[in-house]
Amino acid sequence: MVSIGIDLGGTNIAAGIVDEAGNILASGSVRTLPQRPYQDVVKDMADISLHTLRKLNLSQSDVRSVGIGIPGVADQGTGEVIFCTNLGWHNVPLRDEMQKYINKPVYIDNDANVAALAESIAGVSAGTQTSVFLTLGTGVGAGIMINGQLWNGCHGVAAEIGHLTLVADGEPCTCGKSGCLERYCSATALGRMGRQALAEHPDSMLQAMSGGQPERVNAKTVLDAAKAGDAAAMAVFRHYVKYLSLAVNTIISFIDPEIVVLGGGVSKAGDFLADAVRAEIPHYLMYKTLPYAGIEIAGLGSDAGIIGAAMLGRKE
Amino acid sequence: MVSIGIDLGGTNIAAGIVDEAGNILASGSVRTLPQRPYQDVVKDMADISLHTLRKLNLSQSDVRSVGIGIPGVADQGTGEVIFCTNLGWHNVPLRDEMQKYINKPVYIDNDANVAALAESIAGVSAGTQTSVFLTLGTGVGAGIMINGQLWNGCHGVAAEIGHLTLVADGEPCTCGKSGCLERYCSATALGRMGRQALAEHPDSMLQAMSGGQPERVNAKTVLDAAKAGDAAAMAVFRHYVKYLSLAVNTIISFIDPEIVVLGGGVSKAGDFLADAVRAEIPHYLMYKTLPYAGIEIAGLGSDAGIIGAAMLGRKE
Repeated sequence: MVSIGIDLGGTNIAAGIVDEAGNILASGSVRTLPQRPYQDVVKDMADISLHTLRKLNLSQSDVRSVGIGIPGVADQGTGEVIFCTNLGWHNVPLRDEMQKYINKPVYIDNDANVAALAESIAGVSAGTQTSVFLTLGTGVGAGIMINGQLWNGCHGVAAEIGHLTLVADGEPCTCGKSGCLERYCSATALGRMGRQALAEHPDSMLQAMSGGQPERVNAKTVLDAAKAGDAAAMAVFRHYVKYLSLAVNTIISFIDPEIVVLGGGVSKAGDFLADAVRAEIPHYLMYKTLPYAGIEIAGLGSDAGIIGAAMLGRKE
Repeated sequence: MVSIGIDLGGTNIAAGIVDEAGNILASGSVRTLPQRPYQDVVKDMADISLHTLRKLNLSQSDVRSVGIGIPGVADQGTGEVIFCTNLGWHNVPLRDEMQKYINKPVYIDNDANVAALAESIAGVSAGTQTSVFLTLGTGVGAGIMINGQLWNGCHGVAAEIGHLTLVADGEPCTCGKSGCLERYCSATALGRMGRQALAEHPDSMLQAMSGGQPERVNAKTVLDAAKAGDAAAMAVFRHYVKYLSLAVNTIISFIDPEIVVLGGGVSKAGDFLADAVRAEIPHYLMYKTLPYAGIEIAGLGSDAGIIGAAMLGRKE
């Protein structure tokens, strides 16, 4: 038996056929075009899934379940998408709509949760029972695995770490609060800090690396310039690592997992990032002589969305 | 069968005989006198327990287990106390020492965890499977119940919420970091804020309520003056509630429990405190239209230490 895993993003829909061990056997993608009626988007999700299935000479009878990772919140009971801001979706009956095309159990979960599940089965946290996955992208999301199960919370919205307060009365956040964690730990935040640094240090490598267009400095520019030894970029990176380490320390102090996995765009910096966080964390630990969670870079990259979605069906 | 529950504090040892439903049948207490060798303290713990057992005309054969709540960290595997700062204990073989006197299974856990367990069995969170208990005292501790079980974390130190960073680069903390949650949410913090307010508003009721000795203003003075309508105390209380609500929002955003229980000294303010937090939380929620955790005042008071310790044995 195989499972269909669908990674529904604001720009693209990626679908894959995944075996029981979490290997992607085949995959494909189409544009989301989210301004369309949701029925059209779901039809494309089903079409690309079935097309990919046929590439493997498999049929619906080989499919155990369909899993969908969404950039939003789902009601696991009803199979509805409650919110999905990027898509403009609100109370969309995603499971019912999908089952018009593929009449199998359909599981829906938040994309960070899905990635946490994928990494814990087929990625860097494989073999652990309790892990927290952090996605450092446009915002900051998280997924929590407890005792081998995804922890969704009692109202389906656990692990919303991006809007924990890290700096009370700090930077205003798009959510209306101030000092939210993602204002300091997202790729967006790192890019913003980089642009500020370039304004203050026009001789920084950031100038050339952004093609002389300071407004194009983003997280990758900062990380590349810091790796190349640019002093201004390195100062920004150290500042970012301090806040990220405070966030990781919050996870360690609260959940005490076996492993904290860093994913999302910023994690592409690899061990340059992980080593910096590993060096910082000991300063923040409450119990400095006790063992604590390992800090690792996510292993599956963008495949985590397809693999984790397919694995949602594994629960039953 | 009954269980023995022991609440080991820096000042007093309280021991109780507890039935299967979490009712205290009899209890007693002695001074801890922690400067003594640990062997003497443990002998007193055993003596008061056995004395209390005899008051009920019961013997060791009626005892299922002994549970001990400690203000520190225990190794559940070896039964050692790893740290217990108030007692000056470090790597004390508490289980082995106790079993010299009472040869039953001995369970040891942190006092905030023990209180979380007690409330979830016999207190305000009874009937829930997932709850977080906050103790607002000298410091801030927490205990997490997940799916009906105490969550100790992968290295035995989960729920150390007091030293999460709430205000990066904020108030210096005794732990060496800055801006730790307990610098803003503990009874100690509330008292400190009260003393500052009195210095700025000498006409405040805090003056009379501290007997004209501003250094005696503590959390209770502030709460009493705020309840009585004193403007300066009310401003302090609102400030405190804001930070406490940010902390509760961190718990809700991360764990998404059924209930958050407020315990410890500050919680004696009852619904005056709970109502203020309940009114504040909606401002901080990420998903304002979804249901979220109830906020309740702990129901067992200081009995939680004995009851929860006795219930630790329930695991097996």
